[in-house]
Amino acid sequence: MSGTAMRYDEILLAHGSGGRLTSDLIGAKFLPHLRNDCLEALGDSAVFSIGGTKLCFTTDSYVVNPVFFPGGNIGSLAVHGTVNDLSVCGGRPLFMSAGFILEEGFPMRDLEAIVESMGSAAREAGVQIVTGDTKVVAKGSADRIFINTSGLGVIEYEGELSVGSIREGDVLIVSGTIGDHGAAILSAREELGLASGLVSDCASLNGLIHGVLGVSPHVHFMRDATRGGLGAVVCEAAAGAGARIELKEASIPVKEEVRGLCEILGLDPLYIANEGKLVLFCPAAEAGRVLSFMQGHPLGRDAAVIGEVTAMGGKRVILHTSVGGSREIDMPVGELIPRIC
Amino acid sequence: MSGTAMRYDEILLAHGSGGRLTSDLIGAKFLPHLRNDCLEALGDSAVFSIGGTKLCFTTDSYVVNPVFFPGGNIGSLAVHGTVNDLSVCGGRPLFMSAGFILEEGFPMRDLEAIVESMGSAAREAGVQIVTGDTKVVAKGSADRIFINTSGLGVIEYEGELSVGSIREGDVLIVSGTIGDHGAAILSAREELGLASGLVSDCASLNGLIHGVLGVSPHVHFMRDATRGGLGAVVCEAAAGAGARIELKEASIPVKEEVRGLCEILGLDPLYIANEGKLVLFCPAAEAGRVLSFMQGHPLGRDAAVIGEVTAMGGKRVILHTSVGGSREIDMPVGELIPRIC
Repeated sequence: MSGTAMRYDEILLAHGSGGRLTSDLIGAKFLPHLRNDCLEALGDSAVFSIGGTKLCFTTDSYVVNPVFFPGGNIGSLAVHGTVNDLSVCGGRPLFMSAGFILEEGFPMRDLEAIVESMGSAAREAGVQIVTGDTKVVAKGSADRIFINTSGLGVIEYEGELSVGSIREGDVLIVSGTIGDHGAAILSAREELGLASGLVSDCASLNGLIHGVLGVSPHVHFMRDATRGGLGAVVCEAAAGAGARIELKEASIPVKEEVRGLCEILGLDPLYIANEGKLVLFCPAAEAGRVLSFMQGHPLGRDAAVIGEVTAMGGKRVILHTSVGGSREIDMPVGELIPRIC
Repeated sequence: MSGTAMRYDEILLAHGSGGRLTSDLIGAKFLPHLRNDCLEALGDSAVFSIGGTKLCFTTDSYVVNPVFFPGGNIGSLAVHGTVNDLSVCGGRPLFMSAGFILEEGFPMRDLEAIVESMGSAAREAGVQIVTGDTKVVAKGSADRIFINTSGLGVIEYEGELSVGSIREGDVLIVSGTIGDHGAAILSAREELGLASGLVSDCASLNGLIHGVLGVSPHVHFMRDATRGGLGAVVCEAAAGAGARIELKEASIPVKEEVRGLCEILGLDPLYIANEGKLVLFCPAAEAGRVLSFMQGHPLGRDAAVIGEVTAMGGKRVILHTSVGGSREIDMPVGELIPRIC
């Protein structure tokens, strides 16, 4: 447990980045008071058994700005995000809750559009929103709308999906181009005045994941690369597994428009959020099967092998750059793009 | 489904009151898009089975102002509230999630105090907080801290706890004095300048409820009387059951200080929020057993029989007043006290 969160007297935007300060906050301020094995596993979902059935349970609050963006809105994003957090743990999402915090004056028409898209997203993913809550705060006490979704799923996959299962020789596969969601949100922010055709990748990955686990019984670890992007997921995996991971920059799929936007703004696509992209670790022997299944799925067409676990005991991530160099990459410390989800 | 929510183009504070406008909003804007049997039951928790085990699942967001108040804070309140929503459905609370939305600049010391009290409340109630999420928004985009807790419990009680089980001749029992939470929050708001010794009743009722269900196998319906107070719960039950309910004002326990504050502010204690009070419907023949168990429990010392279901097919609530008259009472329409929970 790192003590850097202790240095701050106040919450910073960076404490919500999903990067190092978020981890520090959880380690220093949350875990000591809430300790239990489930929570300390720090997975995307908690995993436990009730009545002999293995279940997974997850929660996320959504504060994305703008509320409507190319490719989705806060409501569809909330459903996709919770479906994905359950799915990467090997769970089949079944039930979901929806808690709304609304600012007085929020347009009823917008609320209805958001709820409608939550309904569509839930139906597509085969999950039911079974319970909810609505709170309203006075004008100025919240920024328009915040949504929390919690989800419950059943785990039927028999393998152990965790950083502890990662082994030397595992390859890393990403299910498609990275940074699309973050870049779409950025370009949708009026104050930036950036016109682009960028569309968020936000999507429910349960179908893709179910298929992958069907063709490969030895997937070791999966994570959807949201806040903190691909970089944060790979660094977390390296730290959790105690592994040396080497990535090939030239193999990482990035759309030209995303790369362009990142260059203009001085951002690294590695750390830009995705909302429909999967990172997966599996033995090299199964990579071909996984990749070919993914590439045949509408949400995995651009899937690629992007790296390898080259040693255990290292806790380092090395990026072999497109221009022939190599550098170590680290968890993002702070907040590249606040309110990305 | 009432159409009054359709009349509004914008969200009003009253849409979050737990009263009639909240019901209208749910009926007009949420249910049409999210339809499923679980959600339409509109219980405090959704009830479903997984792998042959009957489970309950609930969510609530907390926006209480002030964040710290006599008797608790937003964190302990969130744990108690979720424990209670599961318990009134006959559930034994097992697991909980916690989602934080923090305003940039929120004092780290306050966050830690809140998380610490969540940990204590969870341990006391025998529930584990197993998964969480933290988002941070810029200063001015949220009022300090909002918390969502979702909870999962297992239902072992074999009776059917629902408004549909309410029968003519059932008595209504309340577990103690009403309005304590709302009155404590009001008097804690600095702008009112009211000094009082009022303390919120916020508490986890799972122990009390487990005991009651043990002594009475025929409890028909229970609800914790939160937003909208005792009045809202009784009106909802009357509407849901199609029952005529008669209440005796003189039997409803109200603390002198709460009554005094309500008189000063022109409020009716019937509609003031509680966070540790149970309303229960059971056959008259079991009332004695239930009451004597409650009165022997630290959270039920002031329990009282407060009324009766006098006919089915009525959907009316009649209050026989202390001064000898009687009047019909109705769901509160709007928001008596915003951000009470």
